[in-house]
Parts: sequence; structure tokens; C-alpha cells
Amino acid sequence: MESSSIRLAVIPGDGIGGEVVAEGLKVLQAAGVKAETVEYDLGAKRYHLSGETLPDGVLEELRGFDAILLGAVGDPSVPPGVLERDLLLRLRFELDHYVNLRPVKLYPGVETPLAGVRPEDLDMIVVREGTEGLYAGAGGVLRRGTPQEIATQESLNTAFGVDRVVRYAFDKAQARPRRKLTLVHKTNVLTFAGDLWARTVDRVSVEYPEVTTDYCHVDAASMFFVNQTQRFDVIVTDNLFGDILTDIGAAVAGGIGLAASGNVNPSRTSPSMFEPVHGSAPDIAGQGKADPTATILSVAMLLDHVGLGAVAARVEQAVADDLLGRQVAGSGRQTREIGDDIAARVAG
Amino acid sequence: MESSSIRLAVIPGDGIGGEVVAEGLKVLQAAGVKAETVEYDLGAKRYHLSGETLPDGVLEELRGFDAILLGAVGDPSVPPGVLERDLLLRLRFELDHYVNLRPVKLYPGVETPLAGVRPEDLDMIVVREGTEGLYAGAGGVLRRGTPQEIATQESLNTAFGVDRVVRYAFDKAQARPRRKLTLVHKTNVLTFAGDLWARTVDRVSVEYPEVTTDYCHVDAASMFFVNQTQRFDVIVTDNLFGDILTDIGAAVAGGIGLAASGNVNPSRTSPSMFEPVHGSAPDIAGQGKADPTATILSVAMLLDHVGLGAVAARVEQAVADDLLGRQVAGSGRQTREIGDDIAARVAG
Ligand SMILES: CC(C)[C@H](C(=O)O)[C@@H](O)C(=O)O
Ligand SMILES: CC(C)[C@H](C(=O)O)[C@@H](O)C(=O)O
Repeated sequence: MESSSIRLAVIPGDGIGGEVVAEGLKVLQAAGVKAETVEYDLGAKRYHLSGETLPDGVLEELRGFDAILLGAVGDPSVPPGVLERDLLLRLRFELDHYVNLRPVKLYPGVETPLAGVRPEDLDMIVVREGTEGLYAGAGGVLRRGTPQEIATQESLNTAFGVDRVVRYAFDKAQARPRRKLTLVHKTNVLTFAGDLWARTVDRVSVEYPEVTTDYCHVDAASMFFVNQTQRFDVIVTDNLFGDILTDIGAAVAGGIGLAASGNVNPSRTSPSMFEPVHGSAPDIAGQGKADPTATILSVAMLLDHVGLGAVAARVEQAVADDLLGRQVAGSGRQTREIGDDIAARVAG
Repeated sequence: MESSSIRLAVIPGDGIGGEVVAEGLKVLQAAGVKAETVEYDLGAKRYHLSGETLPDGVLEELRGFDAILLGAVGDPSVPPGVLERDLLLRLRFELDHYVNLRPVKLYPGVETPLAGVRPEDLDMIVVREGTEGLYAGAGGVLRRGTPQEIATQESLNTAFGVDRVVRYAFDKAQARPRRKLTLVHKTNVLTFAGDLWARTVDRVSVEYPEVTTDYCHVDAASMFFVNQTQRFDVIVTDNLFGDILTDIGAAVAGGIGLAASGNVNPSRTSPSMFEPVHGSAPDIAGQGKADPTATILSVAMLLDHVGLGAVAARVEQAVADDLLGRQVAGSGRQTREIGDDIAARVAG
């Protein structure tokens, strides 16, 4: 076992968040990773108690950690969007998580809704921009509630923001066997932003002669996620397109219960945050029905990010082995049992 | 045979456009519809000859028709986006095609990439807004080509524009057996526009007590297009989300070769335009390989729009029968043969 210690902030959040995070931490421990964890009670409960979503003091504290593990936020008792925006998106923006890293990978043994698609047909990484675009919150409303109302939303894109995420994506592509990078955008309609993205990919590509680049409109790409998944290796795209594509990706790669993600600040000026792509699923909260696999895979991404690549690989392998076993064993296990089984494989 | 005469403008466009449009017109004729057609040579050829995409004079002429049939526009020899924006999108905006109507329907006998999905699981209509949102072309760029560049795109949404498309969608839902309408948006991030859309659906829903409404974020909806298609009956959504969703829809309903669409002006102040969802596919142009089915189904939508509902139903039935036969016959037919076969069924 490797000896290492990381300072980890844990935000279980709402709904099933606590249940899946517990299994993630269990696996971390089983892997022999020494982690000093501090738990933060951000989410619906705190919001109701004090009206707070993300107090400035907590945000400052969070900056001191090596990484953050987040379960899920959102609860029907809180006005829609409040926790998503003031907690989740605020963390991404304040901690400058400019890379939202989302592998889309079909593990052997996992059932996909796509007929005839095999694991070798579906193995990509979506590099989603995380701090710009339509997520900037820019826009406004005039004459609200009248027949003359207008409402606007603005996508903000900067050379600074696009360049850094595109470079990250090229690095990722360079390190993979296929070395292919696809820009997904909608340049024929979003001409200003699309032009900036396309020019940036062109310019940076000169520095990566071994990486093949191509381009795909977001509508076509969404179609290819269903009927031509082999087309993609690494994808780089904006915040909103990445949001949509990675949910299609989760669907085709076996469901939202398996989709992991990292909100990464590659320059390491603040901690990166790892979270399952799924939400808080209040309908099944507290019943031990949630699949902790996405969280455990997010923990593997976290380990990789903090420099524990070998441990990360072991955790991912344990998950892969567990997934392979599910074909035979069926999926009758409780959240905790899945965590136990994966932890045992990691420890063993 | 019904006796009727319509004035029809035909824009074959580029690539496979001419081939598929010819089959659409063949079926129209076989159906006994008297149509006075005028062909317009808009597209890449005209652009190269004269630099024109859509001359004002042509646009004025087009206003005089009962309907427009469009093949496809776009050619690698023309700078990307020019024909899409200055011809296709300009037609949609100038002719006020505020409803972009896109059925997503799995016909019996058609192969879907989704395992185990049957025709009864996949039968919806996407009502996509066609004249607003990010397609307005609003936005700009500052300090282009420098590290300080910023590029913006603005989504413009008006109560006027949202209200009319939402009402249209409610009417559609009311007329279908399930009477269900789902708003797809991203209200938790696009708060200004999302709020306008959600409030409009709420307000109008009072006038349609028999229609059940619900809401789905675009990322979740994209996932459900893959793993829970039964969820949807009628969807109403904005221009960009509708673009993406209907391409996923085309993929799951058997491919872009079958997806029909109508750019509809329900107030009939100008002609509506019907077109296959697919593009000009320059790689297979002139080879007789294109599937004209999407165009023929678009012709059926056109017939329905100009008040020839019974003929429209006959054309759709002929397509359905032809599709059912493909399981046995295979898909070795040329564009013209498919048109011939469907025309024969319509005539017979
Ligand atoms: C909850 C929501 C704001 C968030 C997003 O849109 O980014 C989620 O969908 C995700 O993908 O992490
Ligand atoms: C060609 C393009 C501008 C168009 C759109 O985005 O609307 C196309 O994708 C469509 O769906 O008809």
C-alpha cells in the first residue's frame, strides 16, 4: 500500500448525496489512502436553517484543501435552481474549475441501451468548459409578466477561457492512443463564439502535430453519440453543449449511476472538485437504492488528480471488475453492499 | 382522387437536395394533387454565379405561394454557414416560421439503434421555436484575434414569440390521445429565458385543462431520448434545444434519412416551408444513394398544412407500408426506386 495523505473537503449535499459519498470514502480508505476529511453541511438543510447556500467563510476554508468530494445538491423543498446556482455553480466559478472532465466509457459487462455497441466502440472523454458561456449568468428581463416582456441570456466567451480549456483537451488527446480531438460547437449559427472556438483549436493544433482534429456541429454530435460513438476520442466543447452531450453520454454508457466527473482547476490555484454526474434523486433518498459507482469513479478521478495515479487505477479496476460481475450477480445490491464489494476488491 | 390545386415553390438546393425533391414531387403527382410548381435555383450554384443567396425579389415572389418544398442547402465550396444563415435561416425568419415542427416517430419495421424499443415507445412531436433564441444572430466580438478577445452570443426571447409557439404546442397536444406537453429548457441555468418559458406554459395551461404538462431540463431530456422515450408526447422548446433534441430524435427513430420537418407559420401570413431534417450530404450527391423518405414525409406534412389532410394521410400510410417492406426487401434501392415504390402505393 502506498503511503500518502490528502486533505479532503467532503460535501455530501442533498438526497442520495450522503449515501453515495459514504461509499466513496469507504473505498478511499480501503485503498490505503490517508485522508484527512472535513465534512461541510452545505445543501438544503443548511439553507432552511440559516438561509445560507455557500457562506464566504466556508468558501475560503474550502480553498485550503487538496480536493473536494461532492455528492449531489438539490431538493424539492428549495426553490428550483437556488442550490444549483448559488452552491454548485458558484463553487465551479469561484474555484475556477475551468475544465469539467467527463469520461464517457462503456465498461465491459455494462448494459447499454444501444444495440450492438461494444466497449471498444464507446470510450471517450468530454472536456467541457466550466466557467464561461451561457453559465456566466448574464442576461436580463424587461417588462416581466407583460405581453411586451423580453428575456435575454448571454453566452460570454473569452480567448483566455477558451484557450486554456482547448490546451487541456489537446494534452488529454495527446496522451491517448488515438490522439483525436473533436471540437463540438454550432459555428453555423453561433458565429461569434463559434469562430473564437474554431480559431483557437486551429491555432493550438499547430503545437500538437500528432493530434488529429476535427469539427462537429452539436446537433450532429448528439446524433453520433447514439449511432456513431466510435467517432469520438476526446471532445472539447462549451459549458452548455458539454452539459447536454455528457448526459447523452451517461445514457449510452449504461446510465447516470455510472457517470463520474471532475471539476478541475489544472493550474492548481484552488482545489478541484469531484462529483457524480447524477443529481440528488430525492425520490429514492434514504432507501439504500442509489448506485455509488459514479461517486467511486469520481474518487478515482480525484486520486489521479492529486497525484496518486496508481491508486486511482486500482480503484477504477475494482469498479470495472465489479461491473463485469453484475451481469451474473444481477443488480439487487444495496448502496452499501456495492461499496463494500468494491472496497474489498480494492483492499484485496 | 381528390381534386385540388396548390401553388408550390420548390427549392431543390444543393447536394442530394435535387434528387430527394424530385421523388417528393413524384409522390405528390401520384397522389393526384394538382400542383403548380415553380423551381428556384437558390443554393451554392447561384451563389457562385452571382454572389446571391436570397435576393429580395425572390423572397417577395416566394411570399405568393401556398407552400415551399426545400431539399437541402450547403456545399463545401461555399464558406461554412453562409447558405445556412443567409438562405435557410433567413427564409425561416423572413417568412416568420415560428413553429419548427418535427415529428419523432418510430415506424414499424424501421430499425432503431435502441435495443428493445418498439414503435409504441417512440411517437412524439417536437415543437421547436423557429424565430428567436440564440438563432437571432445577436452577439459580437471585441479584440478579435488577440489574447483579450471576447465573443458573445445572445439568446433573445419575447413573450410574443414564446406565447405563440406554446399555444401551438398546446393545440397539438390537445389533439393527440395522450394529451401531454413537456417543456424542455434549462431553467436552473438560463434563469431569465427559462422563467419566461415556464411562466408562459403555466399561464397558457389554464386554458387547456385536459392537457397534462410537465417540465424537463434539456440535459435530462437528451438522456430520456435515449433511455425513456415513452416519457414524451408533445415537446415544446426553444430554437437551439429543439435543434439538438430533434437530431437525437432522428437518430433513435431510424436515422436522418427518415426525419421530416415543417417550418410553419400557423397564422398563414406567409407560406410555410417543408424540408427533410438531413443536410445536402455532398459526399453521396448524384449517386442515387440518398433516401427520399424524409422528403416524402415532409410532403405529407405540407399537404396536411394546406388543408389536404386525407391525401397527407395516404402519403404517410404509403411510406409506412414501404418502411415495413424494407425489413424483407433490404435497402438496396436507389433514390428513384424508393420514390417509384412509394408513388405506386399512393396511386394504387
Ligand atoms: C445542476 C446543473 C446546474 C448542472 C449543470 O448544468 O452543469 C448539472 O446538470 C451538471 O451537469 O453538473
Ligand atoms: C443548417 C442549420 C442552420 C439548421 C439549424 O440549426 O436549424 C439545421 O441544423 C436544422 O436543424 O434545420
